[in-house]
Amino acid sequence: MRIALDIMGGDHAPQEIINGGIDAAKKYPDVQIIMVGTEEVLQKLPELPANITTEQCGSVMGMDEAVDNLMKKKDSSIFVATKLVKDGLADAVVSAGSTGAQMAAAVLLLGRIKGVKRPAIATVLPSVAGPRVILDMGANPDADAEMLDQFGVMGKIFAKTVLGYENPHIGLLSNGTEESKGNKTVIEAHQLLQNNTELNFIGNIEGRSIINGEDYDVVVCDGFTGNVVVKSIEGTAMSLFAIIKKELASSLKTKIGAMLVYDNLKNVKKLLDYSEHGGAPLLGVKGISIICHGSSNAYAIMNACRAARNCYEQGFVAQLGTAFAKKED
Amino acid sequence: MRIALDIMGGDHAPQEIINGGIDAAKKYPDVQIIMVGTEEVLQKLPELPANITTEQCGSVMGMDEAVDNLMKKKDSSIFVATKLVKDGLADAVVSAGSTGAQMAAAVLLLGRIKGVKRPAIATVLPSVAGPRVILDMGANPDADAEMLDQFGVMGKIFAKTVLGYENPHIGLLSNGTEESKGNKTVIEAHQLLQNNTELNFIGNIEGRSIINGEDYDVVVCDGFTGNVVVKSIEGTAMSLFAIIKKELASSLKTKIGAMLVYDNLKNVKKLLDYSEHGGAPLLGVKGISIICHGSSNAYAIMNACRAARNCYEQGFVAQLGTAFAKKED
Repeated sequence: MRIALDIMGGDHAPQEIINGGIDAAKKYPDVQIIMVGTEEVLQKLPELPANITTEQCGSVMGMDEAVDNLMKKKDSSIFVATKLVKDGLADAVVSAGSTGAQMAAAVLLLGRIKGVKRPAIATVLPSVAGPRVILDMGANPDADAEMLDQFGVMGKIFAKTVLGYENPHIGLLSNGTEESKGNKTVIEAHQLLQNNTELNFIGNIEGRSIINGEDYDVVVCDGFTGNVVVKSIEGTAMSLFAIIKKELASSLKTKIGAMLVYDNLKNVKKLLDYSEHGGAPLLGVKGISIICHGSSNAYAIMNACRAARNCYEQGFVAQLGTAFAKKED
Repeated sequence: MRIALDIMGGDHAPQEIINGGIDAAKKYPDVQIIMVGTEEVLQKLPELPANITTEQCGSVMGMDEAVDNLMKKKDSSIFVATKLVKDGLADAVVSAGSTGAQMAAAVLLLGRIKGVKRPAIATVLPSVAGPRVILDMGANPDADAEMLDQFGVMGKIFAKTVLGYENPHIGLLSNGTEESKGNKTVIEAHQLLQNNTELNFIGNIEGRSIINGEDYDVVVCDGFTGNVVVKSIEGTAMSLFAIIKKELASSLKTKIGAMLVYDNLKNVKKLLDYSEHGGAPLLGVKGISIICHGSSNAYAIMNACRAARNCYEQGFVAQLGTAFAKKED
């Protein structure tokens, strides 16, 4: 398979993205990486493995640039990379650049799967019980109940095909477990999900249950809530480790103690490390577009390439198409 | 001052609530605690300090009972306790029972402060930089932009009078720092808060910034998002400590290390312990009503009594009344 990697997007672009692409190419010899970058950046590339090629672009969409500008910047890295997929020259696009621009490029160039109201960003969330899926992570801040129901279907197929969960448990994020709890949209979505015979819907999930991951495999929410909640969890875990690190360096006694427990604390940190799970696929478009954290390092990019490879190998897009075609009947 | 303590409400009622009330009575001799309970529970009370009295009620509102039942259960502990405040026989009510019932009793019996569209639940959130305020925590899952603007004003006065922050920084929880980010309501609220000359509004706050608490003193959000986010943060911190504990018990080496770092890890845990900050006041009603976590233990109840005492001593309700009277002019 072929991955168009936007080496211009992200807080640590181009260096970390390039390194991540090289690592992915070495780890997955069956994958061909097409690095999309400006002339200046391509000229400075180090010697590359044989399974990396390059494609030149003329500009970059800024992280905070108005998405509307995309149509004026058809030579931008994300436009060029996504167009490779549209033209059949790549099987997936991976980027850590502007999420808005990447989504717009995907919808515009690849198009929506028939029957899908709105594409959604699915994030693989590290939980105590293993990887879980949460969607939407920000594509639809004002998702309505029908969209939330569709997110359940898309999340199910993702959890099944890409994560390998046989009959995924779908939960709805709410401010209480009772079906009467929620804002108006969530209360309405609860009914739709409950009546959706294709889904193994287990009801509402509270914020505190997300991280332990015991009850559910997929949790559905609007893009505003998903973004805020995942960033809150991530921030809490990161801050906690930072404080613990500081505390353990506070005296000779704690420094000795820290040496003895170092490996174990590292295990815990790794468990909740978001970069382990790579990027977040945009579900519902006719192609694979993996959205990475703006702050992605090489390791996160390598894992995002692995996610793209998984989606491709499992025929995720085709399976989604089949599921929604059935619903249209 | 006098606190009506609902000893019937909460997952660990009545024992933990009674113990918390006794601890508060001992710690704050200037406070009189009125324990509100059923005959059966009052009969079994241990010997009480002189500054505790009792008041009998006839029933209890169940944790998941429909709030509408409150009007049929005027002898319930929360109704009786709140009525003591209404009748001038207590200055504050503290409960760990059904949040919905407590809110309904407060609005019904104490009434809204003139000018306040909807009361909101304010939670004191432990952050790395010290206590912060987040509201709404669940009273208004569908808060509109005008309500969010008012939450900013109520949060400011709470942070100023009760937490002692001179000129509190107010942030708006959103899925990005740019003012264009948010759902429709949040984007609209951003403009109202920006134009509110009484507020030191610093713009949008992302989920990941909540726990470090550096940029803001008060963070405003609707009751759905607030509930989900605070529970997510709480769940993440608790789960992390649980995993660390397990890891540190895994071998002799880690057990020795754990002994050396025990006090320091306990410091970190205490920093993020919600029970340190007691209950969440319902802001915007004409009286003090402190809503406690359903899972409150004695320590949390004692701290909730302290929060009630702080609100009373700082004349919080009167200050809120003055602020909204000014706005009405």
